[in-house]
Amino acid sequence: MIKGLRKIVDGGVFQGIILFVIVFNSVIMGIETIRDLPAGAVNALATINMVCLIIFIVEIIVKLLAYGLDYFKDPWNWFDVIIVGVSMASGLAFMSAFRAVRVLRVLKSLKALRGTKLIGHVRKLQIIIDAIVKSIPSIGWTGVLLLLIYYIFALIGVNLFGEAFPDWFGTIGKAMYTLFQVMTLESWSMGISRPVMAEFSYAWAYFVPFVLLSSFVVMNVVVGIVVNAIDEVNAESAAEAAKEAEASSEVSREDLLKEMHALREHLDRLEKTLEKA
Amino acid sequence: MIKGLRKIVDGGVFQGIILFVIVFNSVIMGIETIRDLPAGAVNALATINMVCLIIFIVEIIVKLLAYGLDYFKDPWNWFDVIIVGVSMASGLAFMSAFRAVRVLRVLKSLKALRGTKLIGHVRKLQIIIDAIVKSIPSIGWTGVLLLLIYYIFALIGVNLFGEAFPDWFGTIGKAMYTLFQVMTLESWSMGISRPVMAEFSYAWAYFVPFVLLSSFVVMNVVVGIVVNAIDEVNAESAAEAAKEAEASSEVSREDLLKEMHALREHLDRLEKTLEKA
Amino acid sequence: MIKGLRKIVDGGVFQGIILFVIVFNSVIMGIETIRDLPAGAVNALATINMVCLIIFIVEIIVKLLAYGLDYFKDPWNWFDVIIVGVSMASGLAFMSAFRAVRVLRVLKSLKALRGTKLIGHVRKLQIIIDAIVKSIPSIGWTGVLLLLIYYIFALIGVNLFGEAFPDWFGTIGKAMYTLFQVMTLESWSMGISRPVMAEFSYAWAYFVPFVLLSSFVVMNVVVGIVVNAIDEVNAESAAEAAKEAEASSEVSREDLLKEMHALREHLDRLEKTLEKA
Amino acid sequence: MIKGLRKIVDGGVFQGIILFVIVFNSVIMGIETIRDLPAGAVNALATINMVCLIIFIVEIIVKLLAYGLDYFKDPWNWFDVIIVGVSMASGLAFMSAFRAVRVLRVLKSLKALRGTKLIGHVRKLQIIIDAIVKSIPSIGWTGVLLLLIYYIFALIGVNLFGEAFPDWFGTIGKAMYTLFQVMTLESWSMGISRPVMAEFSYAWAYFVPFVLLSSFVVMNVVVGIVVNAIDEVNAESAAEAAKEAEASSEVSREDLLKEMHALREHLDRLEKTLEKA
Repeated sequence: MIKGLRKIVDGGVFQGIILFVIVFNSVIMGIETIRDLPAGAVNALATINMVCLIIFIVEIIVKLLAYGLDYFKDPWNWFDVIIVGVSMASGLAFMSAFRAVRVLRVLKSLKALRGTKLIGHVRKLQIIIDAIVKSIPSIGWTGVLLLLIYYIFALIGVNLFGEAFPDWFGTIGKAMYTLFQVMTLESWSMGISRPVMAEFSYAWAYFVPFVLLSSFVVMNVVVGIVVNAIDEVNAESAAEAAKEAEASSEVSREDLLKEMHALREHLDRLEKTLEKA
Repeated sequence: MIKGLRKIVDGGVFQGIILFVIVFNSVIMGIETIRDLPAGAVNALATINMVCLIIFIVEIIVKLLAYGLDYFKDPWNWFDVIIVGVSMASGLAFMSAFRAVRVLRVLKSLKALRGTKLIGHVRKLQIIIDAIVKSIPSIGWTGVLLLLIYYIFALIGVNLFGEAFPDWFGTIGKAMYTLFQVMTLESWSMGISRPVMAEFSYAWAYFVPFVLLSSFVVMNVVVGIVVNAIDEVNAESAAEAAKEAEASSEVSREDLLKEMHALREHLDRLEKTLEKA
Repeated sequence: MIKGLRKIVDGGVFQGIILFVIVFNSVIMGIETIRDLPAGAVNALATINMVCLIIFIVEIIVKLLAYGLDYFKDPWNWFDVIIVGVSMASGLAFMSAFRAVRVLRVLKSLKALRGTKLIGHVRKLQIIIDAIVKSIPSIGWTGVLLLLIYYIFALIGVNLFGEAFPDWFGTIGKAMYTLFQVMTLESWSMGISRPVMAEFSYAWAYFVPFVLLSSFVVMNVVVGIVVNAIDEVNAESAAEAAKEAEASSEVSREDLLKEMHALREHLDRLEKTLEKA
Repeated sequence: MIKGLRKIVDGGVFQGIILFVIVFNSVIMGIETIRDLPAGAVNALATINMVCLIIFIVEIIVKLLAYGLDYFKDPWNWFDVIIVGVSMASGLAFMSAFRAVRVLRVLKSLKALRGTKLIGHVRKLQIIIDAIVKSIPSIGWTGVLLLLIYYIFALIGVNLFGEAFPDWFGTIGKAMYTLFQVMTLESWSMGISRPVMAEFSYAWAYFVPFVLLSSFVVMNVVVGIVVNAIDEVNAESAAEAAKEAEASSEVSREDLLKEMHALREHLDRLEKTLEKA
């Protein structure tokens, strides 16, 4: 019976229905955001939402029955459980907004598409994804470095400007947010640096180095990803070139050597014939 | 007679006149935008505009006569028909602004230049265009992913901040526009995020991840195009290198093998001579 | 006598003095910008400035005497004449600011450094410069495309928003400046697009596509330069690899073939000896 | 005794304790920034800070005893001394903020990690760092060029707009800061250029070229680093490819040549045998 259940669960019909419910539910959540809907519509939408949620719960239960504890080996299933859990919890008014993450389930069906012919030939996409995945260690290290820089500048910022500009540099947390804004270059000068400079004329010596330093670190990450991508592409081309080279030279050096050995044996025989004569 | 018409239509004189009218018409539309022109000038410009439009209509009719239904096989001709159609429709006051797209017809003449020597040798330009064209599938997929992210964040944004900030997060559409602005980093913090944080102190947890996520996705697109360009360049260099390698080695392995076969035959003859002796 | 003059003009002493005057003059121009200088200092600085200008004029005259019309074959000399000309013309109050371009003459001495050992080994710098120079045609064509896009959007902008927002879209010129600002993403939304949208709710359909389109075109230029740089680097590496390959294989195929011919001749002689026997 | 001291100093226990003190001290400095702490807590934190500083001083003294003047051969030790020196000097109220640089000592322990297995295999990170280090000369030269451009534009800016906009262009220094802001594209148009254009309508001819020029120079730096990275990656791949090629061809040309020499000697012997016969 479990085998039959697995067949149904992995079948196209079951997965198609679930995908449809996900997309349909996403659209419903979009409609719900319209203001001043008649009370009837609001109730109807809430009901549909509830039905969708029940379908998702049923899906999880059926899959659990079919696969048992193996169910939790696939990280996508964890994803499902967490999202449905969040959706149930968000019956609470405060968390209702987070039901939206349910839309992320569409990603799961994108993954299903991956094996198919539709995107199976998109070799380049794979290279880009590989390049990004492989550059995660570099990104991680630059992230650590960036956090250190943030922390040092936040400490200095709170000590220097904290009292005069409590909104921007009141606490370590506020200073870090302000530094993130400065890193994105958003209003860093007109909005933050110039007002601070009006009080502390030396403040440019705080902001300009931070802008240079953080842009530099960010550029590191970009170059890191590009380097990985180039390496990836080079490896691919090299592998192809090697294959072609092998295919194109019809005569190998080994063939040449064999031929020579044959010649030598010939000569040996000749010599013996002569010696007999 | 149709053959003669085709000759005229494809000839340099006809195409040159049309190109001149397009450029001339573009300039006229520029002059028309000058405010407080004397009434006479306005009328004169309107008349010139009308004449240009009639010339374009005549061009289409002549080409239709020359090529019949084959006319619609060239997408550039569709482009012509649509622009002229829009231009005629824009007699209506509301659409007058859209006559400007007629300037895009200059692109058509750029395409005509392409085959000529003038830019025929710009191999690099071709590589870049090819790289961009080939990266369209990757861009498409990242576009889909970006739309998903936008939709989820817009849903959350409308639910959380919609009531307090109707101009920015009142509807899904407004939220998506706001998110686009945030993605371009324009006033994302001073203009949007800080005012929102003044009401909802946790709002940074909405904006900072979105900034990081969307920059990351955009970087994907850039890396994708660069990867394609590198691949393109590598393929070109590899092809050239292979050609050179083939040309440079005057002696192939096959030559060596043939020479050896000749040697062996020589030995065979020698052996037979000896055996006879 | 002309030969002697040339020796002096091309000598290190003469060039050193001129370089010193250029740098000294640049510093003087910086000091001149200080407000509320005592009248005496202002007069002294003006005198020094005049002296420097006279030295530059003398330099040109001496070089003209030494080289005659050949003087104008070096573009850097044209540069000198134009800058000194502008400096003299800027005796007029209005143009006084443009004397600053005289500082650019320092670049000339940088060029002189180029041949020396100091930067002679900076191969990479050369690659970057080459890549940029080679990508000029691509940049040119994207520039033409960008101008076309600007012109079309400026025309549409003036027609749609010109009356309501004369400061931003009053004329083709103002619209083009505004579009340049939008392309740099500076205050494009909070500063320009949102106020326009308050009047014309559909304005997002004008600004968002322009932002996407212009960023895309700019990215083209960047990718173009990177592609050229990669090509340059690849070519360099390939050339080096070829050299190494040639050097490493001590035995060429031709050697092998020669050896075989010798063998065959040997056999021929042997055969003849046998036939005689 | 010195040997024993060295063992202790280089041992894991000693270094672990120091690393812990560094991290602990960083956290303490973060807690100190909290406003309105009870007086007791403030005193306690100050005491802890003092203790940490004493531990750092002791560390330096112990290391000095263990290594003598060799201590100053490691730049990281200089780093320690300078930071501890700054920390001691910052007993002065004004410099207290600069104690934060002490956090940078964590970097030293990151460096210690480097040799270990943990990040020893992160070859790519090494490539990126190498690429950046190698591109420093190019960055240096573009920096010089950028400074020249800044100086010229600052001079022109002060002369043209200095009187009307003293906050932005009052002095060379203020003008350079303003130009840095314009280079980062922050509020360059709405904040700076448009107000200036309201007074001097031709000001766009000052700002637009500067924006284009400085972006171009910055792009140079980026391309420079990417070029270095590509070169680095190519060199790595080439080295690997060469190794593989050597390993894969089991038969070298020299082997072929030796074989032929053997054949020729065989023939010689044969000839001699025949001549005897």
